[in-house]
Amino acid sequence: MDDLSLEFDALQAAYEEGRATPTAVVSEVLSRISARGDDGVWIHRVPESEVMARARQLESLSADARAALPLYGIPFSVKDCIDVAGLPTTAACPAYEYIAGHTHLAVQKALDAGAILLGKSNMDQFATGVVGVRSPYGTARNTFNADYIPGGSSSGAGVSVSAGLCGFAFGTDTGGSGRVPASYNDIAGLKPTLGLFSRADMVNASRSFDTVSVFANDARDAARVLRVCQGVDPRDPLGRAAPAPDSLPTLPERATIAIPRGDDLEFFGNGEAAALFDEALSALRDAGHTLVEIDFRVFVETSAMMFEGPYIAERYASVGAFIEAQPEAVDPVVRDVILSARKYSAADAFKAVYRLRENAAAIRATFDRADLIVVPTVGTAYTRDDLAAEPVAANANNGRYLNFVSMSDLAAVAVPNGFLASGVPMGVTFVGPAFSDFALADFGARFADGRIAARKPMADKARAEARA
Amino acid sequence: MDDLSLEFDALQAAYEEGRATPTAVVSEVLSRISARGDDGVWIHRVPESEVMARARQLESLSADARAALPLYGIPFSVKDCIDVAGLPTTAACPAYEYIAGHTHLAVQKALDAGAILLGKSNMDQFATGVVGVRSPYGTARNTFNADYIPGGSSSGAGVSVSAGLCGFAFGTDTGGSGRVPASYNDIAGLKPTLGLFSRADMVNASRSFDTVSVFANDARDAARVLRVCQGVDPRDPLGRAAPAPDSLPTLPERATIAIPRGDDLEFFGNGEAAALFDEALSALRDAGHTLVEIDFRVFVETSAMMFEGPYIAERYASVGAFIEAQPEAVDPVVRDVILSARKYSAADAFKAVYRLRENAAAIRATFDRADLIVVPTVGTAYTRDDLAAEPVAANANNGRYLNFVSMSDLAAVAVPNGFLASGVPMGVTFVGPAFSDFALADFGARFADGRIAARKPMADKARAEARA
Repeated sequence: MDDLSLEFDALQAAYEEGRATPTAVVSEVLSRISARGDDGVWIHRVPESEVMARARQLESLSADARAALPLYGIPFSVKDCIDVAGLPTTAACPAYEYIAGHTHLAVQKALDAGAILLGKSNMDQFATGVVGVRSPYGTARNTFNADYIPGGSSSGAGVSVSAGLCGFAFGTDTGGSGRVPASYNDIAGLKPTLGLFSRADMVNASRSFDTVSVFANDARDAARVLRVCQGVDPRDPLGRAAPAPDSLPTLPERATIAIPRGDDLEFFGNGEAAALFDEALSALRDAGHTLVEIDFRVFVETSAMMFEGPYIAERYASVGAFIEAQPEAVDPVVRDVILSARKYSAADAFKAVYRLRENAAAIRATFDRADLIVVPTVGTAYTRDDLAAEPVAANANNGRYLNFVSMSDLAAVAVPNGFLASGVPMGVTFVGPAFSDFALADFGARFADGRIAARKPMADKARAEARA
Repeated sequence: MDDLSLEFDALQAAYEEGRATPTAVVSEVLSRISARGDDGVWIHRVPESEVMARARQLESLSADARAALPLYGIPFSVKDCIDVAGLPTTAACPAYEYIAGHTHLAVQKALDAGAILLGKSNMDQFATGVVGVRSPYGTARNTFNADYIPGGSSSGAGVSVSAGLCGFAFGTDTGGSGRVPASYNDIAGLKPTLGLFSRADMVNASRSFDTVSVFANDARDAARVLRVCQGVDPRDPLGRAAPAPDSLPTLPERATIAIPRGDDLEFFGNGEAAALFDEALSALRDAGHTLVEIDFRVFVETSAMMFEGPYIAERYASVGAFIEAQPEAVDPVVRDVILSARKYSAADAFKAVYRLRENAAAIRATFDRADLIVVPTVGTAYTRDDLAAEPVAANANNGRYLNFVSMSDLAAVAVPNGFLASGVPMGVTFVGPAFSDFALADFGARFADGRIAARKPMADKARAEARA
């Protein structure tokens, strides 16, 4: 089963036609995992015997029972800041480890829908970073060029899908942790509208902006996971029910798409990345969409507010007491970032809250004249050496197009766009208003379909090498 | 015109039938103001010559032009933390005074609708307090018993209506500043849904919870002012348009009304006040409504969060820099309250934000099983001597039933209920979900109508004495 695809339609067709069984699929992905050796993807794996037992249990179901399971036999991973009852949660900090008492509602719904959990995935510690190198559990190996970072903070989640180990992965997204690994790994990353997924039973980065997110090979697969696993959780006092399906925002066949005006587009000197984004814009124009330039400064200012200012105290509110008690147990970069919160007063915090409310209103006003926004997911691609030399600035640069999304209560989907000469992929992100998730995912998937001719040769080659 | 009523219907009928003219009405209220002497109601009065000129200008309009002015010839006051272009704004702190460059949108709309501005009214300094004694401009004289406080912070606003000087008054309401003076002065106080009135061109107490409010003799009059003067302001980046009139929440003829369960009702030893509230509940039952007891603890905890905890830093964010620079220019009680914000960190602030989000969700869930909530506006009535002896605790006690309203994004209307033996009135407050303003005002007005037989003799006697 070397050529086994974990894309949902392909895998489900293989199941239905008897070309695959859950045990055969699990055997294949376990052998892929084994072949990769120490790839930095996992913090905790479900024992192989348990995974096989789960596969056999699914296999034993009647055809009717299987048909009722929308994620039947799909292997998946869970980022290690999301709780699975009985398994350790570390948030990539061994000293922080606890055994979870509850399973996050989205994970439980995935299990109830027939998916097969392989393990807990690696991440930037406390989900602080979009790089994937801030972990004592190693750096998840970029599927396309091991010299490059995998993107983070949901690094293991992204690689688990990209490397063909999982059909989908639960990550989280606060600033952009659910999108950057999609860009670095040529997959889709869906950042859902805040509140669609439960906000209980996870380690918070910034409680105001945290959400569970979904990685998959195709944005439609990610949307399918969202549809199955969303829901108001009695354990989450801030649950937010989605509008009825027929009241959800839609996108027109020929959309008006806002893009940052030329002066505001920043690729940090990477001309190849700029050219790839231009190709994306051309593809959108060729598909009949209308592009309108917008002043992007308020987006950039807003994105900067997540780490440069009082909002960093949201992270301190979550794990500050732990870091104060055990500073030596924490990654020095993560520690310094979070402890920078000490210098801000409550009045500083409220002033930042006011500023964000105003900025968010200005950002949302974009949708008065455009249906969606397209941005580069990241402006350039960094190597692991770049990060070793300059751990903070590279991280901030990769955040330019990210943080404003949750901060303005928007939804986003990151999808593949093309490849740099280094073999590293680069994606684009479509951003829409709250509850546009499904429309965005469909839009993004169609965009990625259109780019497949340009992408496929490099993607296939790299994936084949990665699995070799 | 000794018996001149400033209730809208009565006054407008008098105008239409030629029994009154704006100049005659203005002459009468100016003579009442003059007769009262130093009553602590005003911080800045519009010169009498200007008020008379304004009345003459209105009088010169054609009948058609008058008919198009929904607030034609109604005298009103503006709390001195709300800007009127060209007039000083002090927020009851002389050293803070500035000449306003813009007129608050609601005030402008009132003027455009034919109302006559008499002046800027006294208040607890920086709108910090619900007592009305924290002002270097004196204490507005309670219309019913001058030994008692007028209630605050919109003290002058409340008395300006109660004493027959104005047909309505703009106050503000953050914790309960738009309701307490209604209780102490036997009038209606409407605390609108956040965002219906502009939030620009005013001195902020707590930017998250501030709104302009309306006092009037009858809650229907207050609602009429809201209807005329609401609107999204280009100067307010957080404007919030109301739903279309036919999508606003309504109340059933026979409503289910939540009341704090017995253990949670606190009248601070005032048995008379408890008996008056019982009378209100009986009146509601007699009118065919169903009362259901609710656990009020989360309401009380939430109300306490406005002053006892990091949310006090909202006030520091607004005027803290001024107080730090000129501490001697500030009322010592107000200063100490606001400077208590210094001890809270940004992380403390975000933790309070999280707690409030959860509490607010729990409070709003009340409306899953009740149409509205009724509470005493205040639990007891305090004298000026009480406040002199204990300036903070009495204030906090009067806040028990107040602060949760804005903090949970609700609307409220305070209406008269009855009188204590001291001659001091006591009101009740009806609370409903966001945008229930007009339904609440109508409900509250009908309640007050039903209580008029019990109230009228004392109210008439006290008002007559106040004007004598």
